[in-house]
Amino acid sequence: METLGYYNGEIGLLDELRIPMNDRACWFGDGVYEAAVSANYRIFALEEHMNRFFNSAALLYIAPGITKIQLAELLNTLAHKVDSPTQFVYWQMTRGTAPRTHAFPEYTTPNLWVMIKPLILQDIYQKIRLITVEDTRFLHCNIKTLNLLPNVLASEKAKQAGCTEAVFHRGNRVTEGSHTNVHILKEGILHTAPRDNLILPGIARAHIITHCGKLGIPVDETPFTLEEMFGADEIMISSSSTFCMSASHIDGHQVGGKAPELLRRLQDALLEEFHCFTHTGAGHIGEQCA
Amino acid sequence: METLGYYNGEIGLLDELRIPMNDRACWFGDGVYEAAVSANYRIFALEEHMNRFFNSAALLYIAPGITKIQLAELLNTLAHKVDSPTQFVYWQMTRGTAPRTHAFPEYTTPNLWVMIKPLILQDIYQKIRLITVEDTRFLHCNIKTLNLLPNVLASEKAKQAGCTEAVFHRGNRVTEGSHTNVHILKEGILHTAPRDNLILPGIARAHIITHCGKLGIPVDETPFTLEEMFGADEIMISSSSTFCMSASHIDGHQVGGKAPELLRRLQDALLEEFHCFTHTGAGHIGEQCA
Repeated sequence: METLGYYNGEIGLLDELRIPMNDRACWFGDGVYEAAVSANYRIFALEEHMNRFFNSAALLYIAPGITKIQLAELLNTLAHKVDSPTQFVYWQMTRGTAPRTHAFPEYTTPNLWVMIKPLILQDIYQKIRLITVEDTRFLHCNIKTLNLLPNVLASEKAKQAGCTEAVFHRGNRVTEGSHTNVHILKEGILHTAPRDNLILPGIARAHIITHCGKLGIPVDETPFTLEEMFGADEIMISSSSTFCMSASHIDGHQVGGKAPELLRRLQDALLEEFHCFTHTGAGHIGEQCA
Repeated sequence: METLGYYNGEIGLLDELRIPMNDRACWFGDGVYEAAVSANYRIFALEEHMNRFFNSAALLYIAPGITKIQLAELLNTLAHKVDSPTQFVYWQMTRGTAPRTHAFPEYTTPNLWVMIKPLILQDIYQKIRLITVEDTRFLHCNIKTLNLLPNVLASEKAKQAGCTEAVFHRGNRVTEGSHTNVHILKEGILHTAPRDNLILPGIARAHIITHCGKLGIPVDETPFTLEEMFGADEIMISSSSTFCMSASHIDGHQVGGKAPELLRRLQDALLEEFHCFTHTGAGHIGEQCA
């Protein structure tokens, strides 16, 4: 099929599938999600996505009635139903279906949602434009929840400005993008915001840090400021579908472009790892690609 | 019917109605809502709810394809389909139905949702128990959105503690409850948090302020602290369905109970206004009840 929607065992075209009005996603955004990329029907970094998914659920006291292995098997099975060599694989779990009350309903079980659709991988070497937006989000940004309104508004603002992404900052501190993490290179060091409740612990971010280790690039996980970002050698965003892309402009000002070789080595390593896994099924960093 | 669900013209039992998986409520909580109370098929303070609803929508750049009068007529018509003398009347608007992208989709129209169900009005004179919870919400609390996870978590925490409501505080400043506003009486003065982006401009709150004016109770709309709340003569929560209820305990400590007559006059006035309107259709404050 072209796109796939799945809801508690029911499968259909994404556009046609319907879900109960009383799913708590509808009233409260009461759920968590994950999004990954597949190529050749292999979902990249699935174990890491699965770990984060179960962690998000636990932080909201949602007990998935399924194991990580069962869910991974389901996703792999569903991915095979969508006719596309590269795919956007998305899944979410909501607290359950019940009459609307703020407190958790009793006697409900979580609902499992999946959507899979074709994805055209972007050229990660192209330069992008960013805008900065004050970070007005809640203090649970480490949990990948369905409460995404500030992200939606920031993303729209970026789009209106002809930019790819909005970079959030709390006062002077850069946190992350509306759906990416943000990093800078300065004098050979990668700076990235620390893992706290103000950012999502990105999986692409984790891979970048690991590759930095292999490439001998020191990593500094202390918060950096707007000024440090504007003055950096390179400014990058990362996510599971964009890997690592670098900016030429922020808020209309020309930025970065001062460490192109270092940046390229990092991008190459990320892409190589992805291609290695999705072409051969070979494991991640450190393992030999066939 | 017993309960009613409505979605873009489709009507059914709330439990049975289904909505498209691609409604942006499902992925982002991308919508706004209102909840009011009806008695004898008259929806109380409907004009004020409608004004706030359209304001919430405007703040999220959602353009309702319906006028306030049309929507009010629809709600009145739907309320007559539910067999209950008192009702919970809830409606929401989501940005539209479209493939998932953070930025606003093009060429979509908003979706209109309604649910109406029987409501048993509580005894507002009973004493309630509260807990305090650090306010970790986003900075758009003036907008009545579907991004309610911190409210859900706080409400569950209150329930687990055997309490009716959780009172949020940012540091030492009391903001509001998880689904109510919070007020205190101290030395004859009503203190209530100011209308800014940290609280919802409650309609019951507005009515309380108006009644205070009529009853000669001065109102102070500057932020108050946790200590001021614990030391107050009376501590009250307000909402469209609970009107104004007062607390006997917060975090297990006995509180309030030091201005019972003043509190009672305020509660009586609120309830009288509600009964007057819902029994006779007579207008609000200032008009004579039949």
